[in-house]
Amino acid sequence: MADPRFHGEPRALTVGEIASLTGAVAVDSTTLVRPVTGVATLADAGPGELSFLDNRRYLDAFRVTRAGACLVRPADVPEAPHGTALLTTAEPYFALALALRGFYPEAPVEPARHPTAWIDPSARIDPSARIEAGAVIGPDAEIGARCHIGANVVVAAGVVIGPSSVVRAGASLACCVIGAGCAIHEGARVGSEGFGFATRDGRHLRVAHVGRVMIGDNVEIGANSTVDRGTIGDTVIGTGTVVDNLVQIAHNVVIGRGCVIAGQVGIAGSTRLGDRVVIGGQAGLAGHLTVGDRVVLAARSGVKGDLAPDRVYAGAPAVPIAEWRRQVASVMRAGKQQSDKS
Amino acid sequence: MADPRFHGEPRALTVGEIASLTGAVAVDSTTLVRPVTGVATLADAGPGELSFLDNRRYLDAFRVTRAGACLVRPADVPEAPHGTALLTTAEPYFALALALRGFYPEAPVEPARHPTAWIDPSARIDPSARIEAGAVIGPDAEIGARCHIGANVVVAAGVVIGPSSVVRAGASLACCVIGAGCAIHEGARVGSEGFGFATRDGRHLRVAHVGRVMIGDNVEIGANSTVDRGTIGDTVIGTGTVVDNLVQIAHNVVIGRGCVIAGQVGIAGSTRLGDRVVIGGQAGLAGHLTVGDRVVLAARSGVKGDLAPDRVYAGAPAVPIAEWRRQVASVMRAGKQQSDKS
Amino acid sequence: MADPRFHGEPRALTVGEIASLTGAVAVDSTTLVRPVTGVATLADAGPGELSFLDNRRYLDAFRVTRAGACLVRPADVPEAPHGTALLTTAEPYFALALALRGFYPEAPVEPARHPTAWIDPSARIDPSARIEAGAVIGPDAEIGARCHIGANVVVAAGVVIGPSSVVRAGASLACCVIGAGCAIHEGARVGSEGFGFATRDGRHLRVAHVGRVMIGDNVEIGANSTVDRGTIGDTVIGTGTVVDNLVQIAHNVVIGRGCVIAGQVGIAGSTRLGDRVVIGGQAGLAGHLTVGDRVVLAARSGVKGDLAPDRVYAGAPAVPIAEWRRQVASVMRAGKQQSDKS
Repeated sequence: MADPRFHGEPRALTVGEIASLTGAVAVDSTTLVRPVTGVATLADAGPGELSFLDNRRYLDAFRVTRAGACLVRPADVPEAPHGTALLTTAEPYFALALALRGFYPEAPVEPARHPTAWIDPSARIDPSARIEAGAVIGPDAEIGARCHIGANVVVAAGVVIGPSSVVRAGASLACCVIGAGCAIHEGARVGSEGFGFATRDGRHLRVAHVGRVMIGDNVEIGANSTVDRGTIGDTVIGTGTVVDNLVQIAHNVVIGRGCVIAGQVGIAGSTRLGDRVVIGGQAGLAGHLTVGDRVVLAARSGVKGDLAPDRVYAGAPAVPIAEWRRQVASVMRAGKQQSDKS
Repeated sequence: MADPRFHGEPRALTVGEIASLTGAVAVDSTTLVRPVTGVATLADAGPGELSFLDNRRYLDAFRVTRAGACLVRPADVPEAPHGTALLTTAEPYFALALALRGFYPEAPVEPARHPTAWIDPSARIDPSARIEAGAVIGPDAEIGARCHIGANVVVAAGVVIGPSSVVRAGASLACCVIGAGCAIHEGARVGSEGFGFATRDGRHLRVAHVGRVMIGDNVEIGANSTVDRGTIGDTVIGTGTVVDNLVQIAHNVVIGRGCVIAGQVGIAGSTRLGDRVVIGGQAGLAGHLTVGDRVVLAARSGVKGDLAPDRVYAGAPAVPIAEWRRQVASVMRAGKQQSDKS
Repeated sequence: MADPRFHGEPRALTVGEIASLTGAVAVDSTTLVRPVTGVATLADAGPGELSFLDNRRYLDAFRVTRAGACLVRPADVPEAPHGTALLTTAEPYFALALALRGFYPEAPVEPARHPTAWIDPSARIDPSARIEAGAVIGPDAEIGARCHIGANVVVAAGVVIGPSSVVRAGASLACCVIGAGCAIHEGARVGSEGFGFATRDGRHLRVAHVGRVMIGDNVEIGANSTVDRGTIGDTVIGTGTVVDNLVQIAHNVVIGRGCVIAGQVGIAGSTRLGDRVVIGGQAGLAGHLTVGDRVVLAARSGVKGDLAPDRVYAGAPAVPIAEWRRQVASVMRAGKQQSDKS
């Protein structure tokens, strides 16, 4: 629920204003003046609220929603209940994202340096940045304009953070350069020492990690995810890539632009991903592999070899998804057939 | 080992007092006056200590234990060594839990506000609560009676924590309402922004998350686990549900009451679990699913469809466990048969 | 890239000095006087830099490297480009580790107690230790000589840390005794309460955890990993064992010496590992198992039974790797054959 306790009161908009913000088209122009004072799910929304139908699993909820207005695909209009002002768009979820920006415009970062934060005198903090309580900023760190450094965050010596980036509570950054507009979520660890040991006679000699993590613009690193720094090269995450929670990105990994990496994925050392790669949750990639542009990898896949671009893979070891479906069908059949026999 | 350095000295109890506390029955009433000064494993316990046998894998250790007293099922009494006072019960592990409460009664929380904690003047902290060093409590947060907020914890603006809850070192809470008697363990992240993006032309537009996390009473969230807040609705965890370490609970997930979710499980967005669901370690559930009451899901299962209540499932994709066992047997046979041929 | 911003300037060495440090042999003795001013990957290195070829996947990069010097196996010498001084060794990665110690000698820990750290008066901190900003050291904790306690770390009451250990930013330690020369990386949680509940009628009664975590010497615990303390016994990690990021080690687990545990592995309660066990990423081990010395477990394996020593296992349920390969071949064939039919 959009609780004003946490997010403030939404701006009041009309259906017409939402249409303007989102590019959606009102089915009934007489609804354009209808006021809307917030956003809620199909099940929860009341006559004063906007909802949306994107995933058709929620069609039943749509049919009985009490929402005052709803973003919906043209094809689903016939299923709508009476009384809901319909705004049609090819991409209801995208339109919702835009509408939310209208209801909850991002507040500008209020510059501040909390008295309990420790900022090394040699750090260069843009005067427009905000540093919350208990944050620690090391020597020679650079923090750009309008950055927001959360409570108890640690920014180690020399780290560079581009403008308009946010680092949330309890995260820590070391040996890294971070672009503009990034979000490093709670407890994420960027620039930790990679898992590199040279083993002889059962003894593991730590390999010093003198590389960095280089993060582009508009990158997100999810809560409690870890991104190790390179050994002698860099670990790289390209502009526009988004990484979910509890993801492990090992040393020397290079990730392209615009990738989407879901929760609990693990990418072992030195593996390289192209641009716009999408990886489902809990998938794992071995080290030293190459994954082509626009590869889509199903959740829980296990990748042991290079993957050609523009294909969808699944399974462990990962294969083209059609092949994986046949594998699954075969295994499933084995489970059923023996059932018949027994 | 129960080290007084960490847990203080246990109270001294007699076998009879342990019987009273646990409901277990002494096999030999002459042992009731025997003093017991602590608890240890079957292998480590000496004549002054209590141990227990629940998992019969440890029967060999039981046969030679030097423990002064032991909680045990009636059926295992014949295996006992001489000299150990036997306390029989149908549930030795449950009895151990009760005995531990006798040996180590929970100390009342000593009210305090550490001078290095930062507490916003608008926060409402019950005078009986304890706030440790370096904790940061944001504006309008509410912390109930007898709460214990650990060192370097961050409680963001508006967060509500019910009475007798504990938040351990380094955890962070935002946009959430937490019930009574909860434990949020070290480094857990509750209320982080969900992984929601609307993608167009390869660009990922962040969807503002204006929902909350609503947590019932007596809930546990394990160390370094993550619970994202809802997009426009809420992420919900029902009363009495316990969540292990490194678990990912995505935005809009709804979990019922009394569930048990083991380590490294991942639950994708908007999936709904009934009551008393049990999920084994490293299992993964796709988004927008419904899992019925009392479902048991084996470790490492991968769930892609709805699951009917009151059944045990395993495998990826998850199927009823008898079917999965046949699948495994078939795959195992393939590995062996070819071995014979080769 | 080895950026002086983070790691300082490397010492300048000659090829001859690198040979002395690493035991590698110069192919051409006239190169021994050649100066080398740093380390870089085969692709990035210039004429003043050292590189290495260990994994032959990078043979193509080796053939065209501009590196001034390169550590390489004797067998790969014929592939070398002109102009690179070759240093041959049977273990190039091991030699790299030694060379890095020459270029970047470990700086001695400068003793300090940051004014914003909170150190309980009863804690015993060796005067040679360094305590960073925002760290919290509880009553009766003991911190050894030359230890380095990072920013916003929490060391709870009674914890003992041996000499020359490092605890990185945001980690927390409780109820544990840690040896000498250990590294606890960013956000790791050692000594959190185990996931132990006694369940009756759907209610989960927390079992008090009065055990400890005992960690040997030269152990590494990766970023955001979790190690729960024992219930009434101890969780143990043996000397020389290294643990990667986001690993879960449950209560009462006992791990031997010199083990290697890769990222996102989960080990359930009371399982015991021998010495020199190697576990690949994302593998999972059920509870109460015994894994023999020198077992190697492939990435993503799922272990449900005891494993005999000195063997390599893979799959879920894990089997000897040759058997697993046949299983995979069989499943793969099913995917392909049906493809032919369709």
